[in-house]
Amino acid sequence: MIYLGNDYSYGALPEVLKYLSEINNIGEIGYGEDPISERTRRLLLDQCQLEEGEVLFLAGGTQTNIVALDWFLKPGEGVLCTEGAHINVHEAGAIEATGHKVIPLYSENGKLSAKTIENYMTQFFHDATWPHMVIPGCVYLSHPTEIGTLYTADELKDIRAVCDKFSLRLYVDGARLIYALGSEENDVTLQDLAFLSDGFYIGGTKCGTLFGEALILPGRLPELERNRLFGHIKRHGALLAKGWLAAAQFEVLFKDGLYLEVGNEAVKKALHLRDALHAIGIRSPWQSPTNQQFFIIPTPLLEPLSKEIIFDIWGTPIPQESTIRLVTDWHTSFEELNSAIKILKMLYC
Amino acid sequence: MIYLGNDYSYGALPEVLKYLSEINNIGEIGYGEDPISERTRRLLLDQCQLEEGEVLFLAGGTQTNIVALDWFLKPGEGVLCTEGAHINVHEAGAIEATGHKVIPLYSENGKLSAKTIENYMTQFFHDATWPHMVIPGCVYLSHPTEIGTLYTADELKDIRAVCDKFSLRLYVDGARLIYALGSEENDVTLQDLAFLSDGFYIGGTKCGTLFGEALILPGRLPELERNRLFGHIKRHGALLAKGWLAAAQFEVLFKDGLYLEVGNEAVKKALHLRDALHAIGIRSPWQSPTNQQFFIIPTPLLEPLSKEIIFDIWGTPIPQESTIRLVTDWHTSFEELNSAIKILKMLYC
Amino acid sequence: MIYLGNDYSYGALPEVLKYLSEINNIGEIGYGEDPISERTRRLLLDQCQLEEGEVLFLAGGTQTNIVALDWFLKPGEGVLCTEGAHINVHEAGAIEATGHKVIPLYSENGKLSAKTIENYMTQFFHDATWPHMVIPGCVYLSHPTEIGTLYTADELKDIRAVCDKFSLRLYVDGARLIYALGSEENDVTLQDLAFLSDGFYIGGTKCGTLFGEALILPGRLPELERNRLFGHIKRHGALLAKGWLAAAQFEVLFKDGLYLEVGNEAVKKALHLRDALHAIGIRSPWQSPTNQQFFIIPTPLLEPLSKEIIFDIWGTPIPQESTIRLVTDWHTSFEELNSAIKILKMLYC
Amino acid sequence: MIYLGNDYSYGALPEVLKYLSEINNIGEIGYGEDPISERTRRLLLDQCQLEEGEVLFLAGGTQTNIVALDWFLKPGEGVLCTEGAHINVHEAGAIEATGHKVIPLYSENGKLSAKTIENYMTQFFHDATWPHMVIPGCVYLSHPTEIGTLYTADELKDIRAVCDKFSLRLYVDGARLIYALGSEENDVTLQDLAFLSDGFYIGGTKCGTLFGEALILPGRLPELERNRLFGHIKRHGALLAKGWLAAAQFEVLFKDGLYLEVGNEAVKKALHLRDALHAIGIRSPWQSPTNQQFFIIPTPLLEPLSKEIIFDIWGTPIPQESTIRLVTDWHTSFEELNSAIKILKMLYC
Repeated sequence: MIYLGNDYSYGALPEVLKYLSEINNIGEIGYGEDPISERTRRLLLDQCQLEEGEVLFLAGGTQTNIVALDWFLKPGEGVLCTEGAHINVHEAGAIEATGHKVIPLYSENGKLSAKTIENYMTQFFHDATWPHMVIPGCVYLSHPTEIGTLYTADELKDIRAVCDKFSLRLYVDGARLIYALGSEENDVTLQDLAFLSDGFYIGGTKCGTLFGEALILPGRLPELERNRLFGHIKRHGALLAKGWLAAAQFEVLFKDGLYLEVGNEAVKKALHLRDALHAIGIRSPWQSPTNQQFFIIPTPLLEPLSKEIIFDIWGTPIPQESTIRLVTDWHTSFEELNSAIKILKMLYC
Repeated sequence: MIYLGNDYSYGALPEVLKYLSEINNIGEIGYGEDPISERTRRLLLDQCQLEEGEVLFLAGGTQTNIVALDWFLKPGEGVLCTEGAHINVHEAGAIEATGHKVIPLYSENGKLSAKTIENYMTQFFHDATWPHMVIPGCVYLSHPTEIGTLYTADELKDIRAVCDKFSLRLYVDGARLIYALGSEENDVTLQDLAFLSDGFYIGGTKCGTLFGEALILPGRLPELERNRLFGHIKRHGALLAKGWLAAAQFEVLFKDGLYLEVGNEAVKKALHLRDALHAIGIRSPWQSPTNQQFFIIPTPLLEPLSKEIIFDIWGTPIPQESTIRLVTDWHTSFEELNSAIKILKMLYC
Repeated sequence: MIYLGNDYSYGALPEVLKYLSEINNIGEIGYGEDPISERTRRLLLDQCQLEEGEVLFLAGGTQTNIVALDWFLKPGEGVLCTEGAHINVHEAGAIEATGHKVIPLYSENGKLSAKTIENYMTQFFHDATWPHMVIPGCVYLSHPTEIGTLYTADELKDIRAVCDKFSLRLYVDGARLIYALGSEENDVTLQDLAFLSDGFYIGGTKCGTLFGEALILPGRLPELERNRLFGHIKRHGALLAKGWLAAAQFEVLFKDGLYLEVGNEAVKKALHLRDALHAIGIRSPWQSPTNQQFFIIPTPLLEPLSKEIIFDIWGTPIPQESTIRLVTDWHTSFEELNSAIKILKMLYC
Repeated sequence: MIYLGNDYSYGALPEVLKYLSEINNIGEIGYGEDPISERTRRLLLDQCQLEEGEVLFLAGGTQTNIVALDWFLKPGEGVLCTEGAHINVHEAGAIEATGHKVIPLYSENGKLSAKTIENYMTQFFHDATWPHMVIPGCVYLSHPTEIGTLYTADELKDIRAVCDKFSLRLYVDGARLIYALGSEENDVTLQDLAFLSDGFYIGGTKCGTLFGEALILPGRLPELERNRLFGHIKRHGALLAKGWLAAAQFEVLFKDGLYLEVGNEAVKKALHLRDALHAIGIRSPWQSPTNQQFFIIPTPLLEPLSKEIIFDIWGTPIPQESTIRLVTDWHTSFEELNSAIKILKMLYC
């Protein structure tokens, strides 16, 4: 079986496992107050060129979105996003469960534009009944997006400007961030994210760690707010007792640039797969320059294909043609990809 | 000043005030356990041809929607509605505040169709990722709709069938129900609502009472569930200490058919207004057979008009033409309407 | 039947009904933006000697507590109160439903002392694990308390000082405030409450109005916060469409000092009842100087008594002796009280 | 530094790390639908002598309590527990954040008794105002308790009987369950827990895994409820993408009885420590037969002690004597303990 259904089908990068073994017998204080967490925080802040900031190591993506958005949003405020945003579609109502409305806006190519946000906000405040409506408090973006596309640094700057105009916070979901950073088409740096957003996270789970996401909140919180944040995480069931274990995995990824290597490799392989399938006439519904690739295939092929390759069907399959998602990651090999290509070729041609 | 901005600009029907005076010195048990509440419950159930059912007297519309939907929905379930649904737009996120996602679907003429719901649900369960998505648990309709239009009994029957197919509850917001019942175009009876829905409410606030909505839940609850429902209302801050005061106002409306008279009169006046304005060339963006009428007027007229008539601007005004809402109710007189027509004629022509 | 079970067994003061009739045909803007609400706000602020402040007219007590506490408390913060506090016992978990822990502390005579609060807070921050615990954000008091007792102005000042020391807000539930203001033993003025608390409400429902509570938040909110507060009320289903109807009832109570008269009279009657029952040997479990009186009677008397008088059993009845509550209000007459005394005398002696 | 502050100061049992390495390159389906999760579920159910049941692998203890209690409790219901219960004190209001009141009852020796629960419930329903109160829906116990003590199987049976009488669910927090199972004084088996409770969890984080808790819900859920449960976990941000990694660690613990060995060893060491300290005159405030030991030491010793041993101060230290907690686990060695004993001896004597 070839696993191309997602980027969380295998344990962790060997370097990660090795490091966890090495530190296994070092006693640590719990709840993220240990030296490993401390130095990994500093490491990540440095990578972001941030003097100060909170760095939280959490277990998974939906959890991180809950913790971040429920922190950014005042009670009753809503969050703007695309229709296909993970928080709008695939988190089982986690954001609404914290009392916040998720407000999907029109998107193009999986992305929200500054113009769309500005139009919404302008219209919002021109509607005489707006005090009866949910006031947006935050913009949620994913980079890469749920369909593998990328924002440009300029697009983010424009969005930031609109956010400033309307007192909106800006939050970026980076579940697959290293696959953006590893893409040649990407011009958004960690520093850009740190400078432009009010918070973003660097995904670990989908990028080679056993688990873990690093949520970065630029800037220094007053002492009391830091304590409130700690309680906030705990209250959401997101405080890891052995916090250093999540931090340590990020130390491995970021200490010597391993994350870039991993991102780069995986994207290279994704493009190899894409080019090979395009060459045999399989089309993509849109172009993705990152590790998620989407292809349109005849629906009758889904079943035979599923016997040899693990893949994701994107949305609802329809009688004639369906969209599938194939994903590469740190574990994917060219051999697997070439086998997958061969299988698809045989089925398709 | 002529008040046509809404149907809650004046106190209450004289009959209501009179009755409140009459019962003012009768001692009652609190929290709706009194004889007036009891007999009004029976009265309303009879009108609905229901043997058994819960009838709750609550203070306002948003509160009633909160109480009803949070009762119908299991934790985490969502509610399907139109994009313009009151719960989606004008309740400040009250439903999300109880943890439920509001899921707006495509609507036509302010209405949801059985087909739209069926398509959504079918596609939903064909999406392999649906267990990660918010499961719809209820359909929310307004009758009349937010834009004054009406469902037919057949449309409701079709929607009920789809709800049955997908285990969805059906809830009808009747904030302006008497203006549906008072419209000649309406063929939906109280009995239809009682038979087809899992719950609906009959609005009082917009229909001539000081305050109050009567939420009807057909069928008998087991004793324990009745107690849970009582606590549910209390917990939402919706339990009226002097419950009989809300009930009494419904007794007045329903004892001798006053509600029908009021609904009828108000709709007749609304259509008079509509016809007169159409006659002078003012168009409606859609046809409403109930007490809310919508008109397109040049935006520059908004300001002079607002000096003589209280009206609502519908949505965001745009430079050239804006939509306004004019509403009649139990208090509106033909004199006021004719003055309003004269004013609009003068401004428009 | 003699109604002494509570202070919400009858409609409203005749003056209230009369005024509602008088303003019945005056058109008003909805949602509290009307002149009656405006001038009643000013009236109440003046009574409190406040230059500025928010005055919200809400429907009932539990609702007011929800709106106030969920406004005062930051997400996740808790509220300190007595064990017998209304929010802790009799609101069906309404405060917890908004995500806030209710933290009951030791009370004496139904009251919380500054010392108790200070001890709790001091111990709290000395516990090394406090960041894992619920941080108290507010103190909730009732004046009069749930058992009819009164704070002194000095006690409130001391509590305020402790609140300042620990950044706690102070909120006072005044469901029966006029029965404190009408008691000779009371030395807490409206101005004291306005000056010492971050918010308090003046009850209407239990004090002669059809419904309604006036929540007073001293000080001026910035424009954006005022809009947030408006949405907050709406989101809790607490925004009255015909807001002026609640305001108007407070105008009647406060314009010419009617509230004081009502409070005074009711307390006088309560003390008459108390003295008469004490005279025949019926004891009180504690002394109440307000309109709620508590008496210990042999449990076998409960049943015969309930055939002639509506009363409340306080807590769980036990085989030998039970505590009952008898309450006076604006509607209670000396005739009723004397009959009640006679009945009790007959049963008891 | 000697780490005796808790049982989560070191990574994981070597066997756990080894196994994670072994399975690192086996591709798996996400979200717990993989063969490792499947067979570990079966393994745990077998240990519990359960034919059927749900077994959920979650990340941490507070998260597990949230997921379990919010699943067991109907909206608005409360949970009964001891005053010192983890959910009442140390979860930052996580249960209240899901809308449920935590209701602490009187405890003895850290334990709730069947009698206490029965008294509370009996009194509850005898109070005429109970419909206004929070209805308890579940009993929460910890085994071992937060202070290291143990329920007997008979005590649990009695509690179950009371739960049945009042339709209460019974949930057992087993964060340190293996240290109960490893104690000679314990007579509660996994089968007892499976048979008597509606759900319980076996802690991993404190018992030698990197992370992870196994929540066991005896009995089979209907298909629709299983899907609702899946969404429930996701909505709480508790669904692990690489679910098999948590399961695998439990496979290691339970396949060949490793959990018993670990529990046994740690308890043996804890008792060694206890006996040695008692021998030099240091008292325990209560007797614990499990891996958490509590000692009363002069407060001035806290500071010098903290330079050599990591320990927990229990509650608020007072000027003269303070209570400290010393904890053993899979990693603790006799050497460390003997050093600790020596240090304490030196300081104390």
